[in-house]
Amino acid sequence: MHNKSANTRRDFLRHLGASASALSLPLLSYADNLTYQREYNRVHSLVTNPYGTELGQPGRKLGIALVGLGYYSSGRLAPALQETQYCRLAGIVTGTPAKADEWMKKYNIPKENVYDYKTFDRIADNKDIDVVYVVLPNSMHEEFVIRAAQAGKHVICEKPMAIFPKACQNMIDACKKANKQLAVGYRLHYEPFTKEVIRLGQEKVFGPVKFIESSDGFRVGDPKQWRMKKAMAGGGPLMDVGIYAVQGSRYVTGEEPISVTAQFSPKTEPQKFTEVEETMFWQFQFPSGAVSNSTTSYTAGIERLRASCEKGWFELSPAFGYGPLKGMTSKGPIELPHVNHQAVHMDGICKDLLDGKTLPNHVTGEEGLKDVTLLQAIYQAAETGRKITLKG
Amino acid sequence: MHNKSANTRRDFLRHLGASASALSLPLLSYADNLTYQREYNRVHSLVTNPYGTELGQPGRKLGIALVGLGYYSSGRLAPALQETQYCRLAGIVTGTPAKADEWMKKYNIPKENVYDYKTFDRIADNKDIDVVYVVLPNSMHEEFVIRAAQAGKHVICEKPMAIFPKACQNMIDACKKANKQLAVGYRLHYEPFTKEVIRLGQEKVFGPVKFIESSDGFRVGDPKQWRMKKAMAGGGPLMDVGIYAVQGSRYVTGEEPISVTAQFSPKTEPQKFTEVEETMFWQFQFPSGAVSNSTTSYTAGIERLRASCEKGWFELSPAFGYGPLKGMTSKGPIELPHVNHQAVHMDGICKDLLDGKTLPNHVTGEEGLKDVTLLQAIYQAAETGRKITLKG
Repeated sequence: MHNKSANTRRDFLRHLGASASALSLPLLSYADNLTYQREYNRVHSLVTNPYGTELGQPGRKLGIALVGLGYYSSGRLAPALQETQYCRLAGIVTGTPAKADEWMKKYNIPKENVYDYKTFDRIADNKDIDVVYVVLPNSMHEEFVIRAAQAGKHVICEKPMAIFPKACQNMIDACKKANKQLAVGYRLHYEPFTKEVIRLGQEKVFGPVKFIESSDGFRVGDPKQWRMKKAMAGGGPLMDVGIYAVQGSRYVTGEEPISVTAQFSPKTEPQKFTEVEETMFWQFQFPSGAVSNSTTSYTAGIERLRASCEKGWFELSPAFGYGPLKGMTSKGPIELPHVNHQAVHMDGICKDLLDGKTLPNHVTGEEGLKDVTLLQAIYQAAETGRKITLKG
Repeated sequence: MHNKSANTRRDFLRHLGASASALSLPLLSYADNLTYQREYNRVHSLVTNPYGTELGQPGRKLGIALVGLGYYSSGRLAPALQETQYCRLAGIVTGTPAKADEWMKKYNIPKENVYDYKTFDRIADNKDIDVVYVVLPNSMHEEFVIRAAQAGKHVICEKPMAIFPKACQNMIDACKKANKQLAVGYRLHYEPFTKEVIRLGQEKVFGPVKFIESSDGFRVGDPKQWRMKKAMAGGGPLMDVGIYAVQGSRYVTGEEPISVTAQFSPKTEPQKFTEVEETMFWQFQFPSGAVSNSTTSYTAGIERLRASCEKGWFELSPAFGYGPLKGMTSKGPIELPHVNHQAVHMDGICKDLLDGKTLPNHVTGEEGLKDVTLLQAIYQAAETGRKITLKG
């Protein structure tokens, strides 16, 4: 089926007069891809893919239900879903009736597409909803991803995928068993500046990467929010934003760390940080000999991904936020357009789902599991003061 | 004597119509300082200071002899000494006769002011030379600083002051015994951008400093140079440029570290780095709870000093090179003039010597000793994999 699909795509491109190899070029713009996809959908309507998603009518968008209506849903995902080409906001899952009313009005969501955490499993019967996006506190990801898969829906799970690797594995297994795809909220893999530094690093454009500095932190506001509760968040800034610094060092090298050392800072505001770390550092070694040194914090801001290479350097700063990101290299600035991160993320995933393609490795549950394994190794290294050896 | 001198300066300023407090304002420009000093010298000629330096005729410049004519002397110090107001290139000490000839011609240095390493001690009889600047490989600093002090000269010693703390202490003791002042080549303490980030950090302009990232590295050229020999350099990039990252974290916080952890990178070019480290990281904790995370390298470039504070951030990048440095804060860019680092450094020291003032703490041998103690603690932490507690 994949081969057939690929052949069909190639045939179609040939038909359009484009070369087959052009499709895989990273330089094919997002707009070009959209044009291509719309034409593709028009010509190839009603193709059933191996994951059971129907492409349906030309231009059909996958219906997404957001589970958990906190800031990331209300301030980012819902607005982004007004811009997406391959998906739309179809439903919501919330424990707060007032929020349900507000969202139904604001986004014209029918009552039958609104669930609470008890009625959630009935989503299985709702053909309007193809994808469930779990945007709950970290400790709840496992339960709701598994319930979504069991309800026969593809799932997107916000990062970190879970608090412990075992939960990630349970989620992966549940999705496999249900023959549904599982994606993690790694929006940056669809973001142009990030894609460019991945290219610069992995293609060794400035020679081998020798060392990376990656840091992500901000000054946390309300100390009562769930991010400050260990049981719900699993930890502090490392779980929340440090994961971006982990990702950064991995995607720039294209390698998996083989060892980690880490250090907690003392708490300068102990009354605020009663359960989770305030600031921490960690260092990875990679198989090539490349090393990384990272910072995460809830007490002061920082956001940067920098690679020092044999023949130059490249840097994003800001590197991990919602943008616009900014890129610089030893040869000059990286000039790329700002895109809506959440829109390209959900569109990228849903386009693949519509195409019947297996999601790319870098956004899957397996990728989420790798990061969560590393986050726990970082905590272990900081707690023991020892260098932890990893599988790599 | 100090009080008397201070009173005289105040009287003089009052005479000029300026307020006494203006003198200590960091905003008094370098040019203003020069004007002031020239007037001061004109009025107060022939004042003998407690260190035995004669101010002599108005506008008299202290004579500096450079010991060791490598790049820093030929490419930086000698050119800078053509711009200085309080000192001049008076002599040279070199083991290479061809270099001696070249320098005598180029800088009009009389033959009697040229020494080799054997005849060096005769510099004691040379009234043309007030200050000896030791620019030799690290392992030779101790011997030549002590010989210079014993010859009755003030001394400037390039950084790192020595390889081990004991050598630093010997140098300090020798200068004290000879009643001569000892400065270290910490040019940045006279550099406007550095002075500004010291102010921003120590005056808590953006609130308390929470964490610092400081990094200094470059890709080393000729692997046969003395910097790559452990016996001469004492180590690799940490000794050479990592010391700036150490300094940066200390001068931004105004505190002394109380603990250190550190990590060596694997060697990616083992044939090149046979004796010294290639890249390394270290982390300090400071008494306030502030922490720092640093990188140094001889295999790839980086140069940055960043402080993340409760209410914002500030950063220099480049931060440690010969400039122009570049500064940014969470409130906008730091706009300051570029100066010749070596000129302001030597002028700053020689102005104090001419004024009979004790050199400021941040450029003294005691400061050099602090850094060398920290460099050795960093190596110890990296070698043992353990957190090393420091006196603070």
